[in-house]
Amino acid sequence: MLITSVEIRVRYQETDQMGVVYHGNYFTWFEVARVHLLDRIGCPYADLERKGFLLPVLDCEAKFHSPAFFDDRLTVEACLRDPPVARISATYRVLRDKKLLAEGKTTHAFVSKEGKLVRPPESFLRGIEAFVSEENDFQSS
Amino acid sequence: MLITSVEIRVRYQETDQMGVVYHGNYFTWFEVARVHLLDRIGCPYADLERKGFLLPVLDCEAKFHSPAFFDDRLTVEACLRDPPVARISATYRVLRDKKLLAEGKTTHAFVSKEGKLVRPPESFLRGIEAFVSEENDFQSS
Amino acid sequence: MLITSVEIRVRYQETDQMGVVYHGNYFTWFEVARVHLLDRIGCPYADLERKGFLLPVLDCEAKFHSPAFFDDRLTVEACLRDPPVARISATYRVLRDKKLLAEGKTTHAFVSKEGKLVRPPESFLRGIEAFVSEENDFQSS
Amino acid sequence: MLITSVEIRVRYQETDQMGVVYHGNYFTWFEVARVHLLDRIGCPYADLERKGFLLPVLDCEAKFHSPAFFDDRLTVEACLRDPPVARISATYRVLRDKKLLAEGKTTHAFVSKEGKLVRPPESFLRGIEAFVSEENDFQSS
Repeated sequence: MLITSVEIRVRYQETDQMGVVYHGNYFTWFEVARVHLLDRIGCPYADLERKGFLLPVLDCEAKFHSPAFFDDRLTVEACLRDPPVARISATYRVLRDKKLLAEGKTTHAFVSKEGKLVRPPESFLRGIEAFVSEENDFQSS
Repeated sequence: MLITSVEIRVRYQETDQMGVVYHGNYFTWFEVARVHLLDRIGCPYADLERKGFLLPVLDCEAKFHSPAFFDDRLTVEACLRDPPVARISATYRVLRDKKLLAEGKTTHAFVSKEGKLVRPPESFLRGIEAFVSEENDFQSS
Repeated sequence: MLITSVEIRVRYQETDQMGVVYHGNYFTWFEVARVHLLDRIGCPYADLERKGFLLPVLDCEAKFHSPAFFDDRLTVEACLRDPPVARISATYRVLRDKKLLAEGKTTHAFVSKEGKLVRPPESFLRGIEAFVSEENDFQSS
Repeated sequence: MLITSVEIRVRYQETDQMGVVYHGNYFTWFEVARVHLLDRIGCPYADLERKGFLLPVLDCEAKFHSPAFFDDRLTVEACLRDPPVARISATYRVLRDKKLLAEGKTTHAFVSKEGKLVRPPESFLRGIEAFVSEENDFQSS
């Protein structure tokens, strides 16, 4: 299991007239956290696209426990739980201080620019492996 | 079961650099379809808010079968399946011509401006009932 | 002078916690009106891109006289005033009923996919001409 | 003159199918920079709203010199040039490394929740003054 987290400050543009963040905007934050996770495994998303890989969203979901407000400083965690095979699922948590505001999940597939399903690139697979083995080292110590 | 549909034309702003509509924007379209459904049962969302009711999103999900592109003319259907009790679930379908591009679901609760759970307003309950009985008349004829 | 107009219904997602439409969203509406204007002269923007032309925004501005609210039905006008040469300027007006809510302007250039400035495509120039001469016919009658 | 700057990382959601950031999104970045500037003078925007002040946008503009791309790390500067009287104007610059990508301006007025024009709150005026005198101290040394 691989978890990374990123700090977000809520923008005024992200609120709606209910005085809270519009629900659809959480998916943008999940994206920010996912991009950060790919950085951490040494496989930045911008590089993936330059090499011809796309990572479209196949499905996505979110569950809201408590609203987020303008100017909130939030932590958005992204987590890769299972070894990626044909599909890659990431889960997310949005927290203010230690309070869980929302949870989510997205599923992706690697596709070529022509839209064909492809095997994840080596840099991605190695990146995940390296991270997992590091974690194992860490846990065994 | 109550189904309504609304036509959407994809905006350039809704696309991303993958050349397709960004996944989070489907939730805005679901909102457009939901607002339209509330109009159809004689219970416009703007009126609900003026009367002190809010209808926040508790959870939401979407599944993407095929991308939507800039300038596509889409049909977005909203459907209320179950009689609303404490929670109200709506499902959605996005179609181009007759092709299903995406499906989704949102769950809501009626809350007061103070954030307390409240019973759905009469106008809403009557609106749904009227629609359902109309439909029954239609189906029995 | 060429003016076209398009109807917009304000989305909840477009509001912010001030209870009005977020200012940046007017530029999306201007885009909707501009795309509609290109349709009217027989030169849809999606076709332009398919033929290898892009029409990026060089500068843009908006002036807000009165706020737009959720669920407002608005008219967004786009206007091409000058014969397009190297740069194309369009102006916009946003109205509710007959009340002017906002005005704006965008300037564009035609560029190739490689980012080089190019002459506007024939379909665009002919479209504008046809419209102007039609208008002249109309005005002289 | 008061200048502050904030770092932004471009989100995928902010791009469009031209492969660059959609022009309307720069106004969200200007907002982020403006909020940061208000922090710096000890007058956070969230506090202002809590005290009953709103700071709506009266007009806004942007000029684009060079596109911003997904994953770019940008510096967004906000600058208050004139002592605020009835209207407050801020200017903005967006830079990647030292390259100027875009410039902008927004004009605001302080209004009450009822929408009446009001005098800027003391905390705001004192904040600006303190900053300016500090700067003078600095410059005279």
